[in-house]
Amino acid sequence: MQMPIDLPNQILSAIRFVVGDVKAPLHEPVFWGNEWKYLKECLDTTYVSSIGNFVTKFESDLATFTGAKYAVAVVNGTAALHIALKLAGVQPTDEVLTPSLTFVATANAIIYCGASPHFVDSEEHSLGIDVGKLRLYLKENTEQVSGYCLNKLTGKIVRAIIPMHTFGHPGDIDGLIQISNEFNITIVEDAAESIGSKYNNRHTGTFGLMGTLSFNGNKTITTGGGGAILTNDKDLALRARHITTTAKVSNGWEFIHDEVGYNYRMPNLNAALGCAQLESLPAKLQAKRDLYNKYSSAFARLDKVKLLNEPKNCSSNFWLQTLLLEDENLPLRDSILELTNGAGIMTRPAWNLLHELRPFRTFPRMNLSTAKSLSTRLINIPSSSNLALKT
Amino acid sequence: MQMPIDLPNQILSAIRFVVGDVKAPLHEPVFWGNEWKYLKECLDTTYVSSIGNFVTKFESDLATFTGAKYAVAVVNGTAALHIALKLAGVQPTDEVLTPSLTFVATANAIIYCGASPHFVDSEEHSLGIDVGKLRLYLKENTEQVSGYCLNKLTGKIVRAIIPMHTFGHPGDIDGLIQISNEFNITIVEDAAESIGSKYNNRHTGTFGLMGTLSFNGNKTITTGGGGAILTNDKDLALRARHITTTAKVSNGWEFIHDEVGYNYRMPNLNAALGCAQLESLPAKLQAKRDLYNKYSSAFARLDKVKLLNEPKNCSSNFWLQTLLLEDENLPLRDSILELTNGAGIMTRPAWNLLHELRPFRTFPRMNLSTAKSLSTRLINIPSSSNLALKT
Repeated sequence: MQMPIDLPNQILSAIRFVVGDVKAPLHEPVFWGNEWKYLKECLDTTYVSSIGNFVTKFESDLATFTGAKYAVAVVNGTAALHIALKLAGVQPTDEVLTPSLTFVATANAIIYCGASPHFVDSEEHSLGIDVGKLRLYLKENTEQVSGYCLNKLTGKIVRAIIPMHTFGHPGDIDGLIQISNEFNITIVEDAAESIGSKYNNRHTGTFGLMGTLSFNGNKTITTGGGGAILTNDKDLALRARHITTTAKVSNGWEFIHDEVGYNYRMPNLNAALGCAQLESLPAKLQAKRDLYNKYSSAFARLDKVKLLNEPKNCSSNFWLQTLLLEDENLPLRDSILELTNGAGIMTRPAWNLLHELRPFRTFPRMNLSTAKSLSTRLINIPSSSNLALKT
Repeated sequence: MQMPIDLPNQILSAIRFVVGDVKAPLHEPVFWGNEWKYLKECLDTTYVSSIGNFVTKFESDLATFTGAKYAVAVVNGTAALHIALKLAGVQPTDEVLTPSLTFVATANAIIYCGASPHFVDSEEHSLGIDVGKLRLYLKENTEQVSGYCLNKLTGKIVRAIIPMHTFGHPGDIDGLIQISNEFNITIVEDAAESIGSKYNNRHTGTFGLMGTLSFNGNKTITTGGGGAILTNDKDLALRARHITTTAKVSNGWEFIHDEVGYNYRMPNLNAALGCAQLESLPAKLQAKRDLYNKYSSAFARLDKVKLLNEPKNCSSNFWLQTLLLEDENLPLRDSILELTNGAGIMTRPAWNLLHELRPFRTFPRMNLSTAKSLSTRLINIPSSSNLALKT
């Protein structure tokens, strides 16, 4: 394979053309609105902890923004996944399907439930789960017994699937819903990266039984640390709120805890930040789309690399702008990473695939050829909301 | 038993004498210092999430204040207990000794490790574990096998013990250390309520293999939500920081996760609050001691009730001021709670005992007669740091 030796410099120039001659982190939070006002209000009223108006307002604002009937604010996206899986009925000894090409929180949350991650392949277009390949795999390797999907090899129930909308690009949700119906596998939708992203004009995270969001500092909007569970099911929402607040039942001055609960409630201080961040989310989404358009022009003339666009019938939030190299060529990828990072332009390769990480090597998996290929060809480039404004 | 019918009114009058004719919550946070400045600094620098100067400063300040060699800041006290137990080697099928008279987080954290809580009795003086009674119980019910303490009845290893310094009063630490040595049981010290409390002039939470703190909104100092692990063992501190930050190992732009980790790191935003709170902790401790002294005078002449003082050779932080009724008389206790709460003076009974809660009823326990008695006689009264300043 011949190395296009100019590509690293071409890519650096294209990024510089968009972001200017400055240092650029991969993704930094921007505070354009009422952040200080709301934080100050927390201190002035002393409501900084797990009870307060901002927590309930943030939940209500999230529900309004996403169109989910209910939102439950928690300490982070990992906690949201953990609780969503528990409430989806994931038991110890179950298996849960997850892309190998995703952040480690997903596999960890499965392990917290005592269950096994079962890794599935991704497809090149949206970077989401390859539904066609998955259907063939499930047909061959599972059987329906009493309404459950049994892994024929392990004998375990395949209880749930966690599609993830990678870097903000919605996966093939219709295809996944068909899989869910066909094989009796519950969808818990990982929308950690996709706040503001829509599939057929409906917000990601609202298609599964539950969906999860993340407001970590590197996300489109942040609460410092934070996450949320979305659902249209009132009982599930009440259960989620209950077990994330230590399963406390109050009666006047007395209270009990009626099941094993978790201390996962988002503090009011963090929710205050979230309320302000949510107010400016539409402007941020526009800025990120503008940034995509600028990058798109800048990269249009380059060979051997393409900038990932939103899938058909989808509106992506363009959380992390993503380059996809045409060829699997690790030395080339690394030279691009080295040149850009050395120049103060922060770029990052894909996650190391989960099934290759030490704690997860022994768990079941399908052929993961596309994930493997993508993991050698992906590069994320500076994506902060304020970058489009800088030039 | 004759009910001293004046007692509720006498108690209300004594509290009012100290706090004045105002509504008084049980414990509210007070912000006397740099809270506004530090939160604003987070926004101005954009460091609100899991990386930032305030997190490392908060850890360093906590170590300095407590005298622990290392402090690891996490999202809350429950997370601190969970990780401390894991690092103490608590395995599924182990048992962990915990008071029944404590907050539910302790039993939950044991369950998160897959282990069983094993409930032990408290004593009336400090409200901590009754060491004498525990020794007799362990002698009768456990045996030493290969250096482990085996529960003869269940056959499980009694791996750890979690003494808790109730309402800020240090328990009998010397006695517990003897138990630990005699029976090979590791101490994980729950100092969630006792920041600033000392035993023989050494800070609580620094005697066990690890100790844990909580900075929930109701605690002496708060980070909104937060906690910390204290230890003098460098390897444990590094391990704690590693697995609370998703077990991430970075190498340039690449990173892997080398074990199942947790998303438990305290965000910089919350640590910023903690840094400011810690600066005013000495003043808060003085104010809480002043409040104790005022209450002490006000309650001195009352019969049938005493105000809990700090144990011998101890310095309590007086987190929650505590009345102890002489008699077990639930109607009397409830009439006191009703009168005071009805008058805007927030008072609370003890926690419902953990071994009586539905999720924990089937776990092993010793005779819990003192915990049972205490739980019917305890009443916490308004304890905020700013109350002593109000009169």
